[in-house]
Amino acid sequence: MTIEYHAKVFAALSDPVRLALVHQLRTRGEACGTDLSSALEISLSLVCHHAKVLAEAGILTKTKTGTTAVYTLDQAAISQSLGTLL
Amino acid sequence: MTIEYHAKVFAALSDPVRLALVHQLRTRGEACGTDLSSALEISLSLVCHHAKVLAEAGILTKTKTGTTAVYTLDQAAISQSLGTLL
Repeated sequence: MTIEYHAKVFAALSDPVRLALVHQLRTRGEACGTDLSSALEISLSLVCHHAKVLAEAGILTKTKTGTTAVYTLDQAAISQSLGTLL
Repeated sequence: MTIEYHAKVFAALSDPVRLALVHQLRTRGEACGTDLSSALEISLSLVCHHAKVLAEAGILTKTKTGTTAVYTLDQAAISQSLGTLL
């Protein structure tokens, strides 16, 4: 992985709402948008927006179960970027 | 430390040049602006700019020895923020 990739991961983590979303997924393992919206007290569209930023950085996966989107964290990808500074 | 504080640390780390600067300081322990400018092949004023962002996030310390600014990393502060996601 390049330094540019790691910078992108840190950029994805540079927002308090996205950090809260990551913490929720670390606790829950996986969650649908509605549950995250409820837990974080933000709109579903805001959950989708922040989830998209995390997904673009390669640290979150979105899968569809019927009409429901389920989000999972890629903890290995997060740890790989953080590990370069520990 | 608040989630907003950790988000600020991640924001400071979200730039490839600042990540390279952090890596230099991790290797060297401490370094003056001129040495960092040389190692990163960027201007001294750009070193100062990026060092300022890292300092404002509380993960870099600047001390003056005569007319020379010496930069040191606050590894404990970095580890504290990264540790919230590991």
